[in-house]
Amino acid sequence: MVFWKSLFSGGDTATDAKAGASVGTAVKVTGLNLPPNSQIFFSTDRDLDLYELEELCDIVGWSRRPLRKVKKALQNSFIVVSMWEVRGATKRMIGFARATSDGAFNATVWDVVVHPDFQGQRLGKAMMKYTIDKIRAEDISNITLFADAHVVGFYSGMGFVEDPEGIKGMFWYPD
Amino acid sequence: MVFWKSLFSGGDTATDAKAGASVGTAVKVTGLNLPPNSQIFFSTDRDLDLYELEELCDIVGWSRRPLRKVKKALQNSFIVVSMWEVRGATKRMIGFARATSDGAFNATVWDVVVHPDFQGQRLGKAMMKYTIDKIRAEDISNITLFADAHVVGFYSGMGFVEDPEGIKGMFWYPD
Ligand SMILES: CC(C)(COP(=O)(O)OP(=O)(O)OC[C@H]1O[C@@H](n2cnc3c(N)ncnc32)[C@H](O)[C@@H]1OP(=O)(O)O)[C@@H](O)C(=O)NCCC(=O)NCCS
Ligand SMILES: CC(C)(COP(=O)(O)OP(=O)(O)OC[C@H]1O[C@@H](n2cnc3c(N)ncnc32)[C@H](O)[C@@H]1OP(=O)(O)O)[C@@H](O)C(=O)NCCC(=O)NCCS
Repeated sequence: MVFWKSLFSGGDTATDAKAGASVGTAVKVTGLNLPPNSQIFFSTDRDLDLYELEELCDIVGWSRRPLRKVKKALQNSFIVVSMWEVRGATKRMIGFARATSDGAFNATVWDVVVHPDFQGQRLGKAMMKYTIDKIRAEDISNITLFADAHVVGFYSGMGFVEDPEGIKGMFWYPD
Repeated sequence: MVFWKSLFSGGDTATDAKAGASVGTAVKVTGLNLPPNSQIFFSTDRDLDLYELEELCDIVGWSRRPLRKVKKALQNSFIVVSMWEVRGATKRMIGFARATSDGAFNATVWDVVVHPDFQGQRLGKAMMKYTIDKIRAEDISNITLFADAHVVGFYSGMGFVEDPEGIKGMFWYPD
C-alpha cells in the first residue's frame, strides 16, 4: 500500500502532488530553504527504485551493497520510509529510513539518510518523527537503533537515550 | 519447518529422542551436570507452547507480556530458537532466544534465557552459537543485540563487542 504524506511545503498553500499518488495532510512549516513550488512528502512504499536509493546512499559516502540484498532487506523490513521533494510533475528521493521489527515489542531503525542538499533543515528529524509515529501506531513500545558516533546528538535531540540502565549495544565479530 | 538438533548428551551415546521429532547431529560434551538419560536439543520451531515459554521467562524474573503479543513477536521474528532437555518421552523447554532481521544485512538477538537449573554449564553459549550459525547461514553479516549491564560479559566471551568504533545503542523514550 502506498502512503504519501506531505508535511512541508515550500509554497503558501499545500497543493496536490502532480507526480502521482494521493496526498495526505499538508503541514506548513516556515523557514525551510526550498523553492516556492516545492513540497516535501513522506512515503511508506517499499517498492522503491533501487538505483535512486543507491545514489542517495552513495552521496553520503556509504559503501555499495548488492542491489539483490538491498531489495531483500526492503521486503523484510517492518517499515520503509522515503522522503521526497515534489516539484510539479517531478519527484526526487531526498531521504530514507527503515526499521526491522517483531511487530509487537521491538523495532530497530537502520539506514537513516538525508540528501546533503536538504540537510540541516530539520527534515531528518521530521522523517524520524514520521517513522517513530508509524511504529508507535502499531503498539510497539521499544524503539532502538545503533547510532554512528557522529550522529548520537541527532538522535538524542529527539528522545533517544544512550545505554539506558547500562544496556549496551553489541556487535558480533567472528574471531 | 521443525528442526531439531542435539548437541549435548548426558549419556554415553547419542540416542534418538523419544519425545518426537527427528534428531540432528549429536555432539558429546563432557562435564555436563545432566542425568545420564538426558539429552539437550535445539529447535527452530516457532510454534511453541506460549505458557511453557512464559514459565521460563517468569522464573528468571522477566515481567509478564500479553500472550497475544508474544505470539505475534514469534511469528514476525526472523529466527526463534528453543533449547530442550529430552528424557525418554518427556521434553522440557530450558532455553530460548530469538532474532529480528531484514534477512539480508542485520539481525538483532532478543530474549536470551536459560533456565536457572541449567545455567553455568555453557548451554547459553551453545544456544547463542547455534543462533549465530543459523543467522550466518543466511548470509547476514551484522549480528547485534542490546545486552543488560549484568550480561555484557556473557556476550563478550563469545565475540560480541561493545560500541565498536563508537557506535552507540540507543533507545527511544517518549518525552
Ligand atoms: C544525520 C542526518 C540524517 C541528519 O539529517 P538532517 O536533516 O541534517 O538533520 P536535522 O536538520 O533534522 O537535525 C535535527 C536536529 O539534530 C541536530 N543534528 C543534525 N545532525 C547532527 C549531528 N550529526 N550531530 C548532532 N546533532 C545533529 C540538528 O542540529 C538539529 O538540532 P535542532 O533541532 O536543535 O536544530 C544527516 O546528516 C545525514 O543523512 N547524514 C549522513 C548519513 C548518516 O550519517 N546517517 C546516520 C547513520 S547512523
Ligand atoms: C545470561 C544467561 C543466558 C547465560 O546462560 P548460561 O547457560 O548460564 O551461560 P554459559 O554457561 O553458557 O556461559 C558461557 C560463558 O559466559 C560466562 N557468563 C555467563 N553468564 C555471565 C554473566 N552474567 N556475566 C559474565 N559472564 C557470564 C560464563 O562464565 C561462561 O564463561 P566461560 O566460557 O569462560 O566458562 C543466563 O544466565 C540467563 O538466562 N540469565 C537470565 C536472563 C538474562 O539475563 N538474559 C539476558 C538478557 S539481555
